Amino acid sequence: MITLEDIYAAEKRISTYLNPTPLLYSHLLEQKLNKKIWLKLESQLPTGSFKARPAFNNILMHEKEAKKHGVVAFSAGNFAQAVAYAANLLGLSATIVMRENTSPYKIQRTKNLGAEVVLCGNSYEERTETTLGIQKETGKILLEPYNSPETIAGDGTLGLELIKQLGKELDQCTILVPVSGGGLIAGIAFAVKTLNPTCQVIGIQPKANGSLAKSLQAGLCVNVGSFTTIADVLSLPQMGEQPFEIIKKWVDDVILVEEDEIKTATHYFLEQHKLVVEPSGAVPLAALLSDRVKAEKVICVISGGNINITW
Amino acid sequence: MITLEDIYAAEKRISTYLNPTPLLYSHLLEQKLNKKIWLKLESQLPTGSFKARPAFNNILMHEKEAKKHGVVAFSAGNFAQAVAYAANLLGLSATIVMRENTSPYKIQRTKNLGAEVVLCGNSYEERTETTLGIQKETGKILLEPYNSPETIAGDGTLGLELIKQLGKELDQCTILVPVSGGGLIAGIAFAVKTLNPTCQVIGIQPKANGSLAKSLQAGLCVNVGSFTTIADVLSLPQMGEQPFEIIKKWVDDVILVEEDEIKTATHYFLEQHKLVVEPSGAVPLAALLSDRVKAEKVICVISGGNINITW
Repeated sequence: MITLEDIYAAEKRISTYLNPTPLLYSHLLEQKLNKKIWLKLESQLPTGSFKARPAFNNILMHEKEAKKHGVVAFSAGNFAQAVAYAANLLGLSATIVMRENTSPYKIQRTKNLGAEVVLCGNSYEERTETTLGIQKETGKILLEPYNSPETIAGDGTLGLELIKQLGKELDQCTILVPVSGGGLIAGIAFAVKTLNPTCQVIGIQPKANGSLAKSLQAGLCVNVGSFTTIADVLSLPQMGEQPFEIIKKWVDDVILVEEDEIKTATHYFLEQHKLVVEPSGAVPLAALLSDRVKAEKVICVISGGNINITW
Repeated sequence: MITLEDIYAAEKRISTYLNPTPLLYSHLLEQKLNKKIWLKLESQLPTGSFKARPAFNNILMHEKEAKKHGVVAFSAGNFAQAVAYAANLLGLSATIVMRENTSPYKIQRTKNLGAEVVLCGNSYEERTETTLGIQKETGKILLEPYNSPETIAGDGTLGLELIKQLGKELDQCTILVPVSGGGLIAGIAFAVKTLNPTCQVIGIQPKANGSLAKSLQAGLCVNVGSFTTIADVLSLPQMGEQPFEIIKKWVDDVILVEEDEIKTATHYFLEQHKLVVEPSGAVPLAALLSDRVKAEKVICVISGGNINITW
């Protein structure tokens, strides 16, 4: 299991390459919802999502080996781009395994960042098999997108930034975090609630997914089977065992949001708030707009901004 | 002519209704262009552009009369929305005169904010005639979008915010400002350079427009005739006489940007920076990307974010 020291070490490690992300106070949403609302803009990180945090922490923790053999990772899109970016900056080779049904936009962006993309079948099993095959054949270091201490510690650096950015104002805040594999919410909940136990952390998922609610109910990681959602990077049917152990202890609640609510929230960001937020990053706002968040002070973790838009 | 006191008074007046806009440090652009670059996000104001500043200052300076008779304004879109919003919030009636060729998106947004929209012919003369006709008939207070001290003082509040937000770091900064009627750059240049003479202020226009460069050359407001540009709110053929008097004295330089450069900059904001910026608000970045800004420390005034996007 991770410790606070692991997260501080990750923060120090990645600070050469990544800057803290802006915490934007939303006067617009305050006026609309009569709450204090901050937006933690992970979309401002290189490659447009929080995944740059775990990508750099993972690679830097295994830098010597990674420089020798390169790295391999599987990803629905955002981790892929972050690994490709970090590997390129650190001067090492990256292979990314992506499902055939990944959006061409995300595949192209990953290639543009200098990574080799290997497409595989659409099932979880095919993806794992292809990835492990490449790892065995090439000796490349496997980077876990959510199920490893390196990743959870990297994700947890977001929590340390909130502690610094809000100070006393963080007391009694509720933090809304999109959940798929569980690494992000595990890192944030552990870091923030260890340092400020007055905070609440709530996981948000599309109703079509619901793996977090079902797993918390069952007390173990439930596989919810295949489904589709507009929040495409929140589409893992099963959370990681390692983040789940932390989540069980530290996460306070789960809110499930409808597809329509996710669309409305994404549109609101584009139309009214003038921010590009992907549907998966808009689920905290979907929960807020549907009036299911009772807290008076809320932080929305805007996990990413990678959507294909035209004008 | 305006004084610093007018701008401080405007700041106090509008502060009940508007919050200072975020000044976002762009690590992304620093990495790309090897300069310190800040983005002044006027897109975060209600109705998505800087125009909320002069709209509130104008109405509040004539509040008693405006409450009695209502207000009338002409606008290509952003001032329209801002006046509609302010009038609605202050509980008075607003009529907005817009050209028939204004985008249906902007017309609809203005109506949604509760204003009455009157369409007129596409020439400058037809617009003026229609507006003055309504003023005469109804007694409504005419709000000038750029050619009045009330408006320039309202626009100047942006400059006061930069002084506070950057402190000593503002020394030697170059501020890039989109120019159409000239109110915004006049207000900013006057406020900032009076308080910090080490700053430079540069006006940015589409090459298709060029009214600022030609007027500075001629020493008087030149009408450049009709033209089209993707930066649709920078399409006035002639600047206002009042802002021009200030501009002549305080503005350091002009940069003209090509249509392609404006498109690239707008795309960059959407794709890479995850910010919704209208083409007119992206002209400072267009100037930067085309390598025509020599300064080491640059502030881009992102004047608005009102574009119709889909995803």
